Amino acid sequence: MKTRSSGKIAFVSTRDGSGYLQIVASKSEISEEAWQVVKNLTQETSILVSGEVRADDRSPGGVELGLTGVSVIGASEDYPITPKEHGTSFLFEHRHLWLRSRNQVAILKVRNEVEKAIRDFFYDRDFHLVDTPILTGSIGESAGNLFSTEYFDLGTAYLAQTGQLYLEAAAAALGKVYCFGPTFRAEQSKTRRHLAEFWMVEPEVAWNDSEDNMVLQEQFISYIIERCLERCAEELKHLERDTSKLENIKPPFPRISYTQAIERLQEKGVDVEWGQDLGAEHETVLSEEYDLPLMVFNYPREVRAFYMKQNPDDPRTVLNNDCLAPEGYGEVIGGSQREDDLEKLLGRIREENLPEEAYSWYLDLRKYGTFVHSGFGLGVERMVAWVCGIPHIREAIAFPRQMQRLYP
Amino acid sequence: MKTRSSGKIAFVSTRDGSGYLQIVASKSEISEEAWQVVKNLTQETSILVSGEVRADDRSPGGVELGLTGVSVIGASEDYPITPKEHGTSFLFEHRHLWLRSRNQVAILKVRNEVEKAIRDFFYDRDFHLVDTPILTGSIGESAGNLFSTEYFDLGTAYLAQTGQLYLEAAAAALGKVYCFGPTFRAEQSKTRRHLAEFWMVEPEVAWNDSEDNMVLQEQFISYIIERCLERCAEELKHLERDTSKLENIKPPFPRISYTQAIERLQEKGVDVEWGQDLGAEHETVLSEEYDLPLMVFNYPREVRAFYMKQNPDDPRTVLNNDCLAPEGYGEVIGGSQREDDLEKLLGRIREENLPEEAYSWYLDLRKYGTFVHSGFGLGVERMVAWVCGIPHIREAIAFPRQMQRLYP
Repeated sequence: MKTRSSGKIAFVSTRDGSGYLQIVASKSEISEEAWQVVKNLTQETSILVSGEVRADDRSPGGVELGLTGVSVIGASEDYPITPKEHGTSFLFEHRHLWLRSRNQVAILKVRNEVEKAIRDFFYDRDFHLVDTPILTGSIGESAGNLFSTEYFDLGTAYLAQTGQLYLEAAAAALGKVYCFGPTFRAEQSKTRRHLAEFWMVEPEVAWNDSEDNMVLQEQFISYIIERCLERCAEELKHLERDTSKLENIKPPFPRISYTQAIERLQEKGVDVEWGQDLGAEHETVLSEEYDLPLMVFNYPREVRAFYMKQNPDDPRTVLNNDCLAPEGYGEVIGGSQREDDLEKLLGRIREENLPEEAYSWYLDLRKYGTFVHSGFGLGVERMVAWVCGIPHIREAIAFPRQMQRLYP
Repeated sequence: MKTRSSGKIAFVSTRDGSGYLQIVASKSEISEEAWQVVKNLTQETSILVSGEVRADDRSPGGVELGLTGVSVIGASEDYPITPKEHGTSFLFEHRHLWLRSRNQVAILKVRNEVEKAIRDFFYDRDFHLVDTPILTGSIGESAGNLFSTEYFDLGTAYLAQTGQLYLEAAAAALGKVYCFGPTFRAEQSKTRRHLAEFWMVEPEVAWNDSEDNMVLQEQFISYIIERCLERCAEELKHLERDTSKLENIKPPFPRISYTQAIERLQEKGVDVEWGQDLGAEHETVLSEEYDLPLMVFNYPREVRAFYMKQNPDDPRTVLNNDCLAPEGYGEVIGGSQREDDLEKLLGRIREENLPEEAYSWYLDLRKYGTFVHSGFGLGVERMVAWVCGIPHIREAIAFPRQMQRLYP
């Protein structure tokens, strides 16, 4: 609670997790003892109150409470986060308390809605959740940037960067599957788009090709945004989000190939050549022309992961796509059709010098009834930041982990 | 697919993830080429078929497909898992393929339902999901049994055993919260109830005391079971689960105190003394008297975690409970009211020789507006094993991690 008072009347701002309520105490209507309690209330004291709820148009929730009784449950002296401005570093150092502030509560509520929308989207479409392991011997993408731990007498285990390879095995059993859990990157990166620990949702679908995969992405993103607009109107308003920009987000999304993207960048005078990966600065230039997310497809195979399917029409490229959010939010999805040819996949594993024996189970999926399949990964913090319109993804998770931050 | 054939007619068992379908091929009705394909089909080949769906009461799904055309998409030679019996170790070594078997598919489908029921239960009751960090400096329960990793220049990070401490911070912001993610125990344990990596759901509720906490547990478990009975009838039937035992599970659950439990065990001649923790063998003796889960409450503080609230009526004990599932499934929930008194909590942290500075943020929650709150953790694999009626929790997760198993 927070309080402000004049000589005869005091206003107390309270919350109980479900919402906010303004309490009004009149000196003349309560005991002197209760008045003293109210007058001396400090920020974040927890209190038990009684009183009468009455309609009040000026109050945030349309009602206020006329106080009749009050007692202090938990005192709060010198609460560190005062209404004055604090530096970012101070606030993250006090993240366990900063979460109580109104903006942070609004962001957490949007995150809750985004995550439930994700679960409902897949459940309602007969996908099965398959929880993939965090501790793993087969690494997903690149050998660098992995956290590792001693695993009993079996040597080193790595913290998974993706559940995809395991999902591919599950897709052979269940058809449409997804995983959704924390993923880890020990990247020496301090950008506003990176965390060392973040949540990623990854669907994988048997018989979907890269085209089907892009259609699923469009439906998925549009569904999440629609749910948030519908159920988080109050939070988005509090965050001063321009929701008209989100209302635009409906399929189909514009699509350009990587090759077209390079040409377009070169036309604009950007110094970039075919074969290079696209960085955040390139993505911004490309997506600023659109109000919708932009799908960029078929990247050079050298700049993408070993498991992506080679493009039969242009073997320099793979059948993949990134989805670039508008308003400068950059890549929110990376997806691809998977290489289903045993020899080609084995070739790529060898080219990348990956430990072949750790992948022998993954190769089995191509040995015993291989099948066309595709999937993608969406970074939840990036999605939440975009929906909320906040510049940095570190506020999109309760307790962010960055290279300089492990506390609280 | 699997096949069996006579001279003129062949039956092919297929699945596509959504279900199972029997295909019937008549030599006289298809091309010789198609007949040769069908005759030579091997286990787990992936195929594309055309034909006519027709009602057939003898078929598992009530229909069968009369084949008109067939082509092989992915061959499958010498599939390792044949219809004969295989040893457990062999099957787990081939877990990526074993998942395709009918029993494993059924278990994964029940797990999917259990997890969605959990999400819906909390969402529908206005809980907010708060994803708590895996990489952490503040350990949850005991200093032993932790996986650790180097964390950039900040020293050692531990893989979380619980999200509870972080949830307590979030409960001060949002009232009713929960987390649901993987948790880790580097325990030298090979029992059928332990995994090194397992999924745990943990709600935390502001203003709930230990009594409210037990009521929430009863509702929660009953809800999950009701959902599975309603939506997984086919899978439970396939697993030959005696569902009459599950239909019993409705609130209220019987409750006995730890002290009563000790007396009862002693009456039965079990060699146990007040002050000892209850082991799996004690739990089995206690719960075999009941068809319902048994709540055992208020354990000695010495055998429980530092954060549990001291019982004001008997300071030797804490306000906690375990929930013991019937049919020998043992502890599925551990819960407690949390110590909300700053001095008592600090005393316990010192008694346990925990690193005080790592917990200073946790102590802040008692400094700035402390409040009564309670919560619990349910181990998802134990819940799934109980619902499915399978003896070992390692089959209740797609890729189990045990001390002797990190592959696939």
